[in-house]
Amino acid sequence: MKLNCDLAESFGSWKIEGEEQVMPLIDQANIACGFHAGDPVTMSKTLALAKQHQVSVGAHPGYPDLNGFGRRSMAMSELELKTCVQYQIAAVAGMASIQGLTLSYVKPHGALYNDMMRDDKVRATIMQAVADYPLALPLMLQATEQHQQHQAEADQYDLPLLFEAFADRGYTNQGLLVPRNQAGAMLNGEQMLERVKSLCEQGVIYSVDGAALTYPVDSLCVHGDNAESVAHIQEIQSLMRCYEN
Amino acid sequence: MKLNCDLAESFGSWKIEGEEQVMPLIDQANIACGFHAGDPVTMSKTLALAKQHQVSVGAHPGYPDLNGFGRRSMAMSELELKTCVQYQIAAVAGMASIQGLTLSYVKPHGALYNDMMRDDKVRATIMQAVADYPLALPLMLQATEQHQQHQAEADQYDLPLLFEAFADRGYTNQGLLVPRNQAGAMLNGEQMLERVKSLCEQGVIYSVDGAALTYPVDSLCVHGDNAESVAHIQEIQSLMRCYEN
Amino acid sequence: MKLNCDLAESFGSWKIEGEEQVMPLIDQANIACGFHAGDPVTMSKTLALAKQHQVSVGAHPGYPDLNGFGRRSMAMSELELKTCVQYQIAAVAGMASIQGLTLSYVKPHGALYNDMMRDDKVRATIMQAVADYPLALPLMLQATEQHQQHQAEADQYDLPLLFEAFADRGYTNQGLLVPRNQAGAMLNGEQMLERVKSLCEQGVIYSVDGAALTYPVDSLCVHGDNAESVAHIQEIQSLMRCYEN
Amino acid sequence: MKLNCDLAESFGSWKIEGEEQVMPLIDQANIACGFHAGDPVTMSKTLALAKQHQVSVGAHPGYPDLNGFGRRSMAMSELELKTCVQYQIAAVAGMASIQGLTLSYVKPHGALYNDMMRDDKVRATIMQAVADYPLALPLMLQATEQHQQHQAEADQYDLPLLFEAFADRGYTNQGLLVPRNQAGAMLNGEQMLERVKSLCEQGVIYSVDGAALTYPVDSLCVHGDNAESVAHIQEIQSLMRCYEN
Repeated sequence: MKLNCDLAESFGSWKIEGEEQVMPLIDQANIACGFHAGDPVTMSKTLALAKQHQVSVGAHPGYPDLNGFGRRSMAMSELELKTCVQYQIAAVAGMASIQGLTLSYVKPHGALYNDMMRDDKVRATIMQAVADYPLALPLMLQATEQHQQHQAEADQYDLPLLFEAFADRGYTNQGLLVPRNQAGAMLNGEQMLERVKSLCEQGVIYSVDGAALTYPVDSLCVHGDNAESVAHIQEIQSLMRCYEN
Repeated sequence: MKLNCDLAESFGSWKIEGEEQVMPLIDQANIACGFHAGDPVTMSKTLALAKQHQVSVGAHPGYPDLNGFGRRSMAMSELELKTCVQYQIAAVAGMASIQGLTLSYVKPHGALYNDMMRDDKVRATIMQAVADYPLALPLMLQATEQHQQHQAEADQYDLPLLFEAFADRGYTNQGLLVPRNQAGAMLNGEQMLERVKSLCEQGVIYSVDGAALTYPVDSLCVHGDNAESVAHIQEIQSLMRCYEN
Repeated sequence: MKLNCDLAESFGSWKIEGEEQVMPLIDQANIACGFHAGDPVTMSKTLALAKQHQVSVGAHPGYPDLNGFGRRSMAMSELELKTCVQYQIAAVAGMASIQGLTLSYVKPHGALYNDMMRDDKVRATIMQAVADYPLALPLMLQATEQHQQHQAEADQYDLPLLFEAFADRGYTNQGLLVPRNQAGAMLNGEQMLERVKSLCEQGVIYSVDGAALTYPVDSLCVHGDNAESVAHIQEIQSLMRCYEN
Repeated sequence: MKLNCDLAESFGSWKIEGEEQVMPLIDQANIACGFHAGDPVTMSKTLALAKQHQVSVGAHPGYPDLNGFGRRSMAMSELELKTCVQYQIAAVAGMASIQGLTLSYVKPHGALYNDMMRDDKVRATIMQAVADYPLALPLMLQATEQHQQHQAEADQYDLPLLFEAFADRGYTNQGLLVPRNQAGAMLNGEQMLERVKSLCEQGVIYSVDGAALTYPVDSLCVHGDNAESVAHIQEIQSLMRCYEN
């Protein structure tokens, strides 16, 4: 199981700190592409940091909405969405190639990620967009009860998938994330380590009610935009290394 | 001598018409990259049209200024400018690759082009940006009296150059474009054909005062954003074909 | 009954032609505010033209989406939407004041207009936004079967309403616009004049099936972005003048 | 002598912290207008905070360049610049009016401020833009050796001026700011208090070489975007209060 984290989320003078601390701890860096965050300088610096720490890089495309940080759904047409995603993949792929890096996967961001998980048409459009890209790029999406259906959908496009779980979010018995405005939505440090433990030992996620959710999990998503969260990633990484050895 | 034209200059609902008429007439399509014009849908459609007519495609990066159409100089730092150009090359290169096309060259747009021609530092930054890109892309710039110096500069980066002349602009005796607010700035249809004739027969550009300017010219830049200008390109292309045969 | 038309819809170098022809024919100019179209120069010129022809000016706020021309719904929070609308009203109101004009009303644009008509929360947020603005500005919205309910809602905010009908769109028996992808969606010139006639003589709109829809109509929305549509506005205006006299 | 500070400089999810601490300490809040920073929600919140602490609000217009935070000069035409400044004044003026506040002045931001100080044409355009606005708004600019000339220029537009000095920047003997890449550019806390002292006691600014610069200073510009700088403002304010009493 890998660790992935959203990075390159600065924009011009507005800096998200902590990338230097996070990068050595993770396996996969999701690179913002300039539409919801990230700008060419930011992307270039984060890609260089990923190279230095031999971290895989993925495109992290979002809705074209800097003001909303890609967290507001936009009613884009199929063609708009497909080319919007492809443009962003292209931008990161090319910026990575300058540093001698090859893009490894695509993981949508924010509202686009949520729309992909809940809306068949959005998911089909994103799958098409990624599959049409000449690099063989897996699409990363959330491991849910529908994982077999999602795999079947992706197979139609010859599109490999990567399934991820969230390190810091509570799950419902149905395998959905507990909404942020409800109790149990966010896990504390101890609970995150329990999450890692149950995934590494048993391959399961426990819901807030204690139900065992058994999904394939290729990668665990962590967040590292403040000192406390970076400390949590450090602990998670240490624990995961124990299981690897 | 090739014909090149700026294309993909629509933006969302604002359409620049005439691409279907222009594309069959030219050899090189300069593709706007989304920073001064162009959006993913526009770029995708123009690239498909280029493919259909077997026209070479070049990245046409500009300053990040949609409102000003890239015609307003911006005081960007070296790092900002370099990565800004590279991001745009990357976006077009990747969008082209989806259609099975390979990017052939880079030609800066508008104020960025003008700044490149007159400012050594901007030119050096652009040369570095293009040379660092892993595709072997020539940089297209204006054929001027400094063409040997420009070639020497480019050689330091192992960067091939393409020199272009303008079909529809008057030249001063010094080989500069006559400013748009002065007499002789714009050529009419007949004068454009004279320009083509003197370039094809003698390899020279005649200035507004009749001075013969002898520069290497790999490509002739034409504009085709209205019916009259498309008709001019048609005439230019027909005349050039005569010389080819 | 007034005539209103969306104007100031150019953006930088991308020009929507025809404003000089349209402005003398209408009573109310809906001024794009820079978020979906319009830029400060465009707005300034259109406002000057409105002043010259003594046309009332209204703010025409849209979603912050130039690429989509405000035609793509965006999931904005209440606070985001309220302040987004107010910012746009403020910008037009101030730009108008420079020319000695006073803003007369607010009419949302595109997807924001559609969302206002179908979503109670969006409508409430827009009503609040307009009512909170210190100018006493009526909100213009579509005259529908719900007009009394809409008036009751607006009364809670002490917000005056202006109801509009569309000159060039077919109506269903329920008073909705026939979707653009269905037969009867767009009226031809003759049908538009019939629409004006039935509104001026009987105060009714006839649906595509011939049902008489009786709604209060303060203003008729016309479009004038090409030569044919400008000719239609000319005919509509002439016919309306007959009824006035 | 007043204290002024640039505020409302967040953008969407990217937050500049500390406004709650700074606002009670200052007299004049320069409100970013959405072009280089600030968005409608941010502006609304900062204006509410200014109202709560009875702080005067000024428009802080910048170049339309979020990625560059308005710190990159842009070659705008006179008409573009004039309307760009007026649009921003309008937006803040209207947003302020919603909260019952009246805009008190205009102070350009970043590269626009620097261009105004060094370029007669830019300054004339800005003066025209502000003077044409129907509110009687003073323009705030840097107190320099040219203050009498600037006043004479402004008198032609019937435009009142406010002169400011910088609390945290070293001055050359010519009254210019020491460039940021040179020694003495930035003052430490102690030096800032010396600056305040010499201004309050003697009405002079001492250059890095000890020359006494005697300019009219209506307001002192402070910065408060981190804990240390907020502490400095606290000290400056306390010292200034001593001189007031």
